[in-house]
Amino acid sequence: MSVPTLKQAPVQENTRILGIGAYRPDIIVTNDDVCQWIDSSDEWIRQRTGIVTRHRAPADVSVIDMAEGAALEALQKAGIEASQLGAVIVSTVTHPYATPSAAASLADRLGATPAPAFDISAACAGYCYGIAQGDALVRSGAAEYVLVVGAEKLSDVIDNHERTISFLLGDGAGAVVIGPSDTPGIGPSVWGSDGSKWDAIGMTRSMLDVRDLSTSARQADESDDQAIISAAQDLWPTLRQDGQTVFRWAVWEMAKVAQQALDAAGIQAEDLVAFIPHQANMRIIDEMVKKLKLPETVTVARDIADAGNTSAASIPLATHRLLEENPGLSGGLALQIGFGAGLVFGAQVIVLP
Amino acid sequence: MSVPTLKQAPVQENTRILGIGAYRPDIIVTNDDVCQWIDSSDEWIRQRTGIVTRHRAPADVSVIDMAEGAALEALQKAGIEASQLGAVIVSTVTHPYATPSAAASLADRLGATPAPAFDISAACAGYCYGIAQGDALVRSGAAEYVLVVGAEKLSDVIDNHERTISFLLGDGAGAVVIGPSDTPGIGPSVWGSDGSKWDAIGMTRSMLDVRDLSTSARQADESDDQAIISAAQDLWPTLRQDGQTVFRWAVWEMAKVAQQALDAAGIQAEDLVAFIPHQANMRIIDEMVKKLKLPETVTVARDIADAGNTSAASIPLATHRLLEENPGLSGGLALQIGFGAGLVFGAQVIVLP
Repeated sequence: MSVPTLKQAPVQENTRILGIGAYRPDIIVTNDDVCQWIDSSDEWIRQRTGIVTRHRAPADVSVIDMAEGAALEALQKAGIEASQLGAVIVSTVTHPYATPSAAASLADRLGATPAPAFDISAACAGYCYGIAQGDALVRSGAAEYVLVVGAEKLSDVIDNHERTISFLLGDGAGAVVIGPSDTPGIGPSVWGSDGSKWDAIGMTRSMLDVRDLSTSARQADESDDQAIISAAQDLWPTLRQDGQTVFRWAVWEMAKVAQQALDAAGIQAEDLVAFIPHQANMRIIDEMVKKLKLPETVTVARDIADAGNTSAASIPLATHRLLEENPGLSGGLALQIGFGAGLVFGAQVIVLP
Repeated sequence: MSVPTLKQAPVQENTRILGIGAYRPDIIVTNDDVCQWIDSSDEWIRQRTGIVTRHRAPADVSVIDMAEGAALEALQKAGIEASQLGAVIVSTVTHPYATPSAAASLADRLGATPAPAFDISAACAGYCYGIAQGDALVRSGAAEYVLVVGAEKLSDVIDNHERTISFLLGDGAGAVVIGPSDTPGIGPSVWGSDGSKWDAIGMTRSMLDVRDLSTSARQADESDDQAIISAAQDLWPTLRQDGQTVFRWAVWEMAKVAQQALDAAGIQAEDLVAFIPHQANMRIIDEMVKKLKLPETVTVARDIADAGNTSAASIPLATHRLLEENPGLSGGLALQIGFGAGLVFGAQVIVLP
């Protein structure tokens, strides 16, 4: 049988980030606040993590609300109408519905309908994963403009009384618009995973444990009440990490990935104006700067001091702040790298919007 | 400041699906089984939905287990080693952890590390969304081979006693490997969303309601026991749909999308050897066949009769069966279209592997 020839979409050689937006929720949680819940001190937390405050969202502000705030600014800065978007990608692990996606609602709110819209799950590497995909969609001709959002309400999945990760976490959203460019604006993505460390960062239990409690409750006779209540008391899955494993992996392996992203882009550390790593811990940032031998001319994003670790939102939030405080960096080259639960990682050299 | 020139990755003109795999779990749920839970009959269910049986997975078989089964066959059929994969995409709404992704674990099990791995949330359009992204990653030079998996354990999010959607649903996984091709093998994706219908298919409640119960339970004194138990009895979020809204949208709007996918690929209905729509309901399939005026030479996938609606897994499962039963269709053109919660949709013309 002769097969008719299928058309594939035309390709676009170059892409860049056209605009960036941020949403930082109102509640400020200080180290003294945190020390109500864990036995620690402002000094210890600053020394070990570099964090002074985190922003957290109130009950009536959702992941989608924060995503919308960041997206509206990104579209405005990019000079792009929502109706021009060819895809809406939301990177999040804290949208509290199995389905539909946060992105489908966001696209509707923005007026981007009928753009394809989907969420991705790649934890703290989620923004760089989104950039890799948005870049590929534009370059392969599947979309002209792509909105990439990292949005997290991590305060919904923390246990204030545990001390491996909860006190580090903040809420927020950052967004960018990717589009075609006359010159290269997004270097090749160096991204990957190491699922052998799947247990290093994750939830305390499966959602299925929650389902099983509900089923037991439905079937219980009165004599089972105490068992149900006692299960319900510790029911909600919250985040945990093996801090040592993650710290070592981040410092040793992620510096190599960052270097690979420079190499893949054909760029030297000296060519950079900025380094924007995932804001997980100030000590990880400091170690990476040393290992990469970044010259002092490179501005390092240290948004973590005020924002905490906001997972998929941390890199766009940090980028947004860097550009607000140093508008002259616009147009320069930045190295960005995200890494987190999976374990997963992603890095690119980009031209700052 | 002069900005050094950044390299972007080279592009690949054509892609195709190189191999397909399927995993169908062991438990067969008949219409008579279903009628233990809802007031209906085998005859009514067959007439209204075309479903005779559904496959469901036992408690010890997870989304990742099913994804692995399908992926191993897809890799073997494609003649590709897991180590050659440049990305692993799992489309699912039933992985029971907020993070890490199912894909990171799958990549590790397959030996695909350090391939980037992530989950996407696009419900019953998830497989076609995955194909759109996998195609873009290969064509933009970000990956040479991409594994796209649709894997769902919908039996975890059903309420056997409700009758808008639960009795339709089955479990399973399908997987394909996408790679470079000398000739076009994946037509342009026609994909999109309509978040104004975000409520038409979704969960009965937010996961945050579950958290709030847990918090109440932790803070409860003994006099609150009955309130906690009564909340826990109806705690677990399950799927619901507004069947009429979804049926009308699917029949009217999705036939147009399917036609757009043909047009975008430069293909006529007469050129197709197969039509593989999302297996949501046999009556939707029949209506789409009529509206598209498909000639009788086009084989229509009707896997739903035995498999039920398996969301992101339904199209690759149906494709796998079509090729097992009609090996002569291999190399011919098929039109595939997925649609579901969001609402979201995606369609492509592909060359069958």
